[in-house]
Amino acid sequence: MQGGTMADSSGPVWTPLVVLELASDTAEEAVTWLLRRIRDTQHNGGADLLVEQLGLGVETQKKQNPNLFLVGASNQRLLAGAEDVGLFKEYSDGSMRGFTCASKHNFKDFNGDGDGFLSMAECQYIIKHELDTLRAKDETHVPGHSHAKLYPGKSIKQRQTKTSLTQRNQRDRRPWPSKGSMRKVIVNALSTDDIRHYYGEGQALYFGFLEYFTFALVPMALIGVPYFLFDWEDYDKYVIFAAFNLIWSTVILELWKRCSASLAYRWGTLSRKKAFEEPRPGFHGVLGFNPVTGREEPTYPTAKRHLRVYLVSVPFVLLCLYLSLYVMMIYFQMEGWVLSIHDEEPTFWTGILLFIPSIIYAVVIEIMNLIYRYAAEFLTEWENHRLESSYQNHLVLKVLVFNFFNCFASLFYIAFVMQDMVLLRQSLATLLITSQILNQIMESFLPYWLQRRRNKKMIRKVQKRATLQDKELPLEEQVRLEADMSTYLGTFDDYLELFLLFGYVSLFSCVYPLAAVLVVLNNITEVYSDAFKMCHVFKRPFSEPAANIGVWQLAFEAMCVIAVVTNCSLIGMSPQVKAYFPESDTQLILWTVAIEHCLLAIKFILSFLIPDVPKQIQVKLARLEFESLEALKKKLKATIRATWALITPEQ
Amino acid sequence: MQGGTMADSSGPVWTPLVVLELASDTAEEAVTWLLRRIRDTQHNGGADLLVEQLGLGVETQKKQNPNLFLVGASNQRLLAGAEDVGLFKEYSDGSMRGFTCASKHNFKDFNGDGDGFLSMAECQYIIKHELDTLRAKDETHVPGHSHAKLYPGKSIKQRQTKTSLTQRNQRDRRPWPSKGSMRKVIVNALSTDDIRHYYGEGQALYFGFLEYFTFALVPMALIGVPYFLFDWEDYDKYVIFAAFNLIWSTVILELWKRCSASLAYRWGTLSRKKAFEEPRPGFHGVLGFNPVTGREEPTYPTAKRHLRVYLVSVPFVLLCLYLSLYVMMIYFQMEGWVLSIHDEEPTFWTGILLFIPSIIYAVVIEIMNLIYRYAAEFLTEWENHRLESSYQNHLVLKVLVFNFFNCFASLFYIAFVMQDMVLLRQSLATLLITSQILNQIMESFLPYWLQRRRNKKMIRKVQKRATLQDKELPLEEQVRLEADMSTYLGTFDDYLELFLLFGYVSLFSCVYPLAAVLVVLNNITEVYSDAFKMCHVFKRPFSEPAANIGVWQLAFEAMCVIAVVTNCSLIGMSPQVKAYFPESDTQLILWTVAIEHCLLAIKFILSFLIPDVPKQIQVKLARLEFESLEALKKKLKATIRATWALITPEQ
Repeated sequence: MQGGTMADSSGPVWTPLVVLELASDTAEEAVTWLLRRIRDTQHNGGADLLVEQLGLGVETQKKQNPNLFLVGASNQRLLAGAEDVGLFKEYSDGSMRGFTCASKHNFKDFNGDGDGFLSMAECQYIIKHELDTLRAKDETHVPGHSHAKLYPGKSIKQRQTKTSLTQRNQRDRRPWPSKGSMRKVIVNALSTDDIRHYYGEGQALYFGFLEYFTFALVPMALIGVPYFLFDWEDYDKYVIFAAFNLIWSTVILELWKRCSASLAYRWGTLSRKKAFEEPRPGFHGVLGFNPVTGREEPTYPTAKRHLRVYLVSVPFVLLCLYLSLYVMMIYFQMEGWVLSIHDEEPTFWTGILLFIPSIIYAVVIEIMNLIYRYAAEFLTEWENHRLESSYQNHLVLKVLVFNFFNCFASLFYIAFVMQDMVLLRQSLATLLITSQILNQIMESFLPYWLQRRRNKKMIRKVQKRATLQDKELPLEEQVRLEADMSTYLGTFDDYLELFLLFGYVSLFSCVYPLAAVLVVLNNITEVYSDAFKMCHVFKRPFSEPAANIGVWQLAFEAMCVIAVVTNCSLIGMSPQVKAYFPESDTQLILWTVAIEHCLLAIKFILSFLIPDVPKQIQVKLARLEFESLEALKKKLKATIRATWALITPEQ
Repeated sequence: MQGGTMADSSGPVWTPLVVLELASDTAEEAVTWLLRRIRDTQHNGGADLLVEQLGLGVETQKKQNPNLFLVGASNQRLLAGAEDVGLFKEYSDGSMRGFTCASKHNFKDFNGDGDGFLSMAECQYIIKHELDTLRAKDETHVPGHSHAKLYPGKSIKQRQTKTSLTQRNQRDRRPWPSKGSMRKVIVNALSTDDIRHYYGEGQALYFGFLEYFTFALVPMALIGVPYFLFDWEDYDKYVIFAAFNLIWSTVILELWKRCSASLAYRWGTLSRKKAFEEPRPGFHGVLGFNPVTGREEPTYPTAKRHLRVYLVSVPFVLLCLYLSLYVMMIYFQMEGWVLSIHDEEPTFWTGILLFIPSIIYAVVIEIMNLIYRYAAEFLTEWENHRLESSYQNHLVLKVLVFNFFNCFASLFYIAFVMQDMVLLRQSLATLLITSQILNQIMESFLPYWLQRRRNKKMIRKVQKRATLQDKELPLEEQVRLEADMSTYLGTFDDYLELFLLFGYVSLFSCVYPLAAVLVVLNNITEVYSDAFKMCHVFKRPFSEPAANIGVWQLAFEAMCVIAVVTNCSLIGMSPQVKAYFPESDTQLILWTVAIEHCLLAIKFILSFLIPDVPKQIQVKLARLEFESLEALKKKLKATIRATWALITPEQ
């Protein structure tokens, strides 16, 4: 084993891209075997990558893990890997094509030996892919770990129990402009390209969506401001605002699909074929044969999974919803009880007492969300989904439904059972503002502060040994420091936050037009706190190729539909509208229902009429398709011609 | 030009598959040129097909068109064509794979030289495709017709103004069993395979859908019968029936998707890639370059087409709907006027007068549908769609909306404005029964009778010249006879009929449960009248590969959604349900609306939960995808290995 670190006198001859961390109790021979497999040529079934052990840092205590490895690859190897994973890159004619080594010089930005052609995120993705697909040859178990069984074709990485393949290595970790050019971020949507370059498509799409969403809310916010300034309490005007709101939110969601298609096309993920999905690490079952690949792998009957989903998970979710409802009812009882005490004998202390139920309820909601989240993860894990995507979808759905219910149930109760619009407005404002503040503190500043403390400790330790001119740490220290950072668990929580904000804006927009203004303000700071979080709190995540925001598009559209129902009912309940139908409620309700149905119909027609992919990109995709068809035909014709020439040598 | 007919003494050496008819005034040199191009080898840019002129029949009058040609191809040529159009056939392992000549022996049912491997419909489709894609080389115009301009790459067939490429030739025109085994058709859904073999996938899917739809209605019909027999007028029971109906229709539509996916997979159209669509013959515009193919072709700005659609077509359709509404109001006025006359002084003549408005209205509806159909075709033609599919979609949508309105407006008026349930039931029954009878007479028996008369005349003429043992005509007479038959315009009218029947069943099912029984009975005869129509009335149409019923699935689903709304309102309006809420209408309406929303939500969740493609076929498709990916990877690895071997000759 070569023990040289990257920082030794000889200097790095290649750029380390990924850090591979093995459990500290891994047997010496297992490490040797793994490194040999990684270094081995593809010809021999290896990954053909470069790998070196990271030197020990200043802390020489026992707790340090010596099994940290830097992994990289030659330029040539990376390009071959790009072809292997099916990357799409910009061709010289401006279209996006699947990269092949044979035609590499026809791609735009390919100069010399292709240095800088692949983005950092792509290089890391390729290396991760190569390590993931490193398969056992004829080993029956991992050397030195006889319990870790292997069979030919088994992915080695899935066996390496505590293999955290994480970690960035490049120190230029600021794709976001510095504070000086803050304005630029907000104005210049192109910055998503930089994010994509550094963090990959999944992350970039989230930031793209966040920026788009913020821009899209600006018209709503602008229209909402005069309602607040001039204290317009007319429901006539609210009707206009609500109608605009409903149509607008449909339009922006449809346009986002087009926008996301454009981005995904530019990033080459739109036309990229999905590789065959391997089972997720947690998946277990009887060893059988996969009907698709014919390979040996665990199998688990779908019927059994369906039983688990429908007989256990669904009832559990319903039970949780009921519990949440129950807690809400207790809150309203407490609220009433406190009010009655205050009304009986109002003192300073009873005045303070008035806030107690709300505070308790808010805390209980947060705790319930947290507990439920763990329960949902456990249940979804227990459902034993074969694919990561299926696991994610089930988890998202579970968490989504509960969070929606938990956050909005009290508002629905106030709006439709108590029918108290003033209280609704107050609660809405309180919930919105507190959740925004809490969120930003919880998700970025608190972890940052913890991280910073550790960081400072480390720097102090290093300074003990060597004098540092600038505050830059040597490579091995930096890597070890970052290895301790939290792992970013994907964009789930970020999207969930946006989803709930969208709910506050759209569900009750006609009673509180200022919500849009608050959300726009929140989103502007959110861009920064999320960027901050990505740069300073978490380990650099691996890029995940994404062509759209997936299940979230559906969730936002569903919210839009619910918003039509709630807004129509709210308007129908308003005293001003009731005044138009003095003689009978029946007429009023029928009109409300009719208008609601019309709005829903308009929504569906709109989403049908607006094409999901812009014309221009449709043409580009069609051209690619056409060319591959033509190439196939030409090949066929050539075969026929050759056969013809064979049959009739001289005509 | 070879003038030999197929029936001369030498006997046919190849099976004629398609009849090509040119305008009778086509210049001699144009015919010679076209035949040469068709016979020429593919090497020289020809179609490499066999073609012979059809001999003149018994009628030697001038009106006969001499330019009838029989087209066929060698077995080898047909197989090459099958690869060219991308046919999917069953492989020896039971999966469906794209046919290639190189691997032909691995396909199931491929014996010897592949005789009988391709179905008749496929052979004809291939020949049609080859004729369609015969392109001009360096001719500037059609010889002898200097006004018929050509440019390199221009499809010749599109220039041949009156080229009716139609006509079957095989006389075994009965894929449906004879009368003796009628029961078999109804029980044995497999007969769609025979239809597909003879008429192609589009037609077979229609019959598959018709059969499926009939079976699916049987449970509804069975539940509906006791309502009729025991005169159950309880709305409690109607509620149960309506609820069952709504859920059931959602389920059957979702299951149809799975069923159609299974059929399409078996027929190889599910995974088949669509060829690039050429502009439809009627498309015109400034000559420009197609952005996809780069070929010269007429171009027409999309914005202009959108203007035509939204500023002319949409207002026109709305105007027509208004007119239809106006006519309906006149009908109700006439009805009222006639009733008042009858009530004043009831005589036998006023009793007859009572029927007059209904009859006039029914006739006017039919006339309006007819006129509107022409207008819709004209308008859609004028919208100048580039693709046939886009033209069809716009036409279907226009006709659908108007027919729906025209047929159901009066029922809606009776149900929701007049609120007269007894009249609604009567009108529903009358409309349903009359439209069924009218339809079957109009669409098959009338054209058949006309055809038969011509047929007999021809047979008599032939008998004048030669004595016929059996009633079989010689080939040239048969071809000429069939050339005069009507052209089948696609499954449009057949689907439209089913769509309207589905409307009668679902929209007002809770007031007239017997509708399902009537529709089931109708469908059983419909199978026969449609089969009869296909065999005896129309020229054999070319097969069109189809993987699903397309826009009709959407139309049926939309009908389902509307049915939820109508049924809920009908039940809400019923006196029995009203009796539950004696104190206030408001409560009743709120409950009705709530239940309606729940039903709609259940519908959407159901359609979301039921996968569109059966698991088993998903696996098969995934396996194909996986194998092609693996093959690609293997090729890549081989290249790397070769490069490796080159770099390190001896390790």
